[in-house]
Amino acid sequence: TRSYAITLLPGDGIGPEVISVAKNVLLLAGAIEGIEFNFHEMPVGGAALDLTGVPLPGETLSAAQQSDAVLLGAIGGYKWDNNEKHLKPETGLLQLREGLKVFANLRPATVLPQLVDASTLKKEVAEGVDLMVVRELTGGIYFGKPRGFSTNQNGEEIGLNTEVYSISEIDRIARVAFETARKRRGKLCSVDKANVLEASMLWRKRVMAIALEYPDVELTHMYVDNAAMQLVRNPKQFDTIVTNNIFGDILSDEASMITGSIGMLPSASLGEKAWTGPGLFEPIHGSAPDIAGQDKANPLATVLSAAMLLKYGLGEADAAERIEAAVLHTLDRGFRTGDIYSDGNKLVGCKEMGEEVLKAV
Amino acid sequence: TRSYAITLLPGDGIGPEVISVAKNVLLLAGAIEGIEFNFHEMPVGGAALDLTGVPLPGETLSAAQQSDAVLLGAIGGYKWDNNEKHLKPETGLLQLREGLKVFANLRPATVLPQLVDASTLKKEVAEGVDLMVVRELTGGIYFGKPRGFSTNQNGEEIGLNTEVYSISEIDRIARVAFETARKRRGKLCSVDKANVLEASMLWRKRVMAIALEYPDVELTHMYVDNAAMQLVRNPKQFDTIVTNNIFGDILSDEASMITGSIGMLPSASLGEKAWTGPGLFEPIHGSAPDIAGQDKANPLATVLSAAMLLKYGLGEADAAERIEAAVLHTLDRGFRTGDIYSDGNKLVGCKEMGEEVLKAV
Ligand SMILES: CC(C)[C@H](C(=O)O)[C@@H](O)C(=O)O
Ligand SMILES: CC(C)[C@H](C(=O)O)[C@@H](O)C(=O)O
Repeated sequence: TRSYAITLLPGDGIGPEVISVAKNVLLLAGAIEGIEFNFHEMPVGGAALDLTGVPLPGETLSAAQQSDAVLLGAIGGYKWDNNEKHLKPETGLLQLREGLKVFANLRPATVLPQLVDASTLKKEVAEGVDLMVVRELTGGIYFGKPRGFSTNQNGEEIGLNTEVYSISEIDRIARVAFETARKRRGKLCSVDKANVLEASMLWRKRVMAIALEYPDVELTHMYVDNAAMQLVRNPKQFDTIVTNNIFGDILSDEASMITGSIGMLPSASLGEKAWTGPGLFEPIHGSAPDIAGQDKANPLATVLSAAMLLKYGLGEADAAERIEAAVLHTLDRGFRTGDIYSDGNKLVGCKEMGEEVLKAV
Repeated sequence: TRSYAITLLPGDGIGPEVISVAKNVLLLAGAIEGIEFNFHEMPVGGAALDLTGVPLPGETLSAAQQSDAVLLGAIGGYKWDNNEKHLKPETGLLQLREGLKVFANLRPATVLPQLVDASTLKKEVAEGVDLMVVRELTGGIYFGKPRGFSTNQNGEEIGLNTEVYSISEIDRIARVAFETARKRRGKLCSVDKANVLEASMLWRKRVMAIALEYPDVELTHMYVDNAAMQLVRNPKQFDTIVTNNIFGDILSDEASMITGSIGMLPSASLGEKAWTGPGLFEPIHGSAPDIAGQDKANPLATVLSAAMLLKYGLGEADAAERIEAAVLHTLDRGFRTGDIYSDGNKLVGCKEMGEEVLKAV
């Protein structure tokens, strides 16, 4: 049996509930496929703030760094919203991404046939959508310096951030995107604001340069405002999208909502191929503090994140496919949490959904 | 009779066609309401580049500054896409906004009952949407310094922009937004990324401070990624949205596409109340180079921008309402350009649409 050390970071809100389901699914799928897991549960985000006073304790980061893969629930909540920057739960997440050097964030947005009605888009627009956003995750305006508060020439207070990309940062995310597109339908759309921003002009120039290494992938460019429109007008035109940290934050959330089932969508954050550190896997939904602890959360995004962990993080494709098939089978049998419920199906809570997936595994 | 000097900036692509229609509509509505217009047509964008070598000639800017209002068609085209930054058509538009000091960009997104089918959103989600994005237009990452290309500590090339807001810049756009919300349904949603960016933290702090002057307006805050989702999930929840330059660029385009009729949507860009310079009025659609010169463009966004010019720019509310009513009446009679065409209506070109609006004026 192969054995892996997995760091579980339940985090805040519905995080603990969905992580608990995903852990059981991993255990069972692993047992069947001959994989053993050693789980270490560590605090992060608001939970860590309450416990230790910081959003990413050193112990959590080093446990994560030393493990084979990291599975995160969700982070944040009203309680900590007015904290200073270094004491925000979100800062813990950013430190974790930085500390794990996971610069490539893969966010699929797929409309499952079973859930096409959950989209607010017309059926003919939503059905068949299957796109992947490759978001740069450890650079750009999220991390650029200088940043902070200062005074301008008029002695007035200013708030300031820096959007900055270097050639090597762009090149490595572009390569991940081209590789991803190559394994999908061979189409890559790079999104920028190169008609206004110099950081985007360099982005576009380098993406075009890297394209020469991937003659089999069809590359197009789109301005971010237009991309936000095209996702609504005709999301099926997209296969793989690559973009910077902040545009990726916005567009991947928009794309996920277009599927209508954000409670279903996983994500993977990966480092350099040469880097032996673990990947970070998390549902793209937030901590949903308003339904936390009520057994209402949809655990499937986290379960599918666990499948991505197996596939992208550990190279265990069979176990990953077993989990994905179990999720589809559970949907086929009509089980639905509240967020994806429609008439004629069976409304279940987070735990019961987990049990049904276990049966199907 | 009142007399006004109007600078017309047809610009590129379909710009000349739609401006020509709007000019005729202004002339007729003005004649009926006792208003005289002196039009000065000046080059801007790609048209100006071809003619003078710069995207905003000094003569164009000073003519615009000296007039009572400026009506712009559209800017940009493939031909100039690879120009250097200072020779891009878009740079002319940014210089124009800066030169006219129009820091407040009002972008309505309304789903007209006549056009609800044009939206890719389900009817029950789209119908009744009526929101206004108030976008900061002369600050933030579009104008922030330092910007450009440079080398980092590793000797690597970087592209860099600065997102920066001062207190006075935030305060004045916040006031415009609160005033706008007060005249609408009294709800203002401020969109930022205050969980990550210091520029957004200052934004949120100042919007909350200005809110004290407007106790009758209900203020909420939303992160930009969530706003991009909520516009798809339930756009009716929004009344007035206020946000920075780049988020406003993205979200207003997304909101416009949600209406399904981007060819219908006008915008107004205004300066300080105390400032006597003119406002800038333009459709929110682009220059559509692929259909330029083919008499296929929808002129209604520009006609409605002319109505905004009358209302917000000149205080001529009666003439503005006459034009708005004429547009609705023309739609009621079933006239549609290709972009908003649906079965059972009459397909017309740009010119014929203009003639029908003239009849209705
Ligand atoms: C919580 C926040 C810092 C984070 C981000 O902006 O990256 C989240 O929105 C996400 O997309 O994972
Ligand atoms: C053409 C471009 C510079 C412009 C912008 O980004 O402001 C346009 O997208 C707009 O929204 O008016």
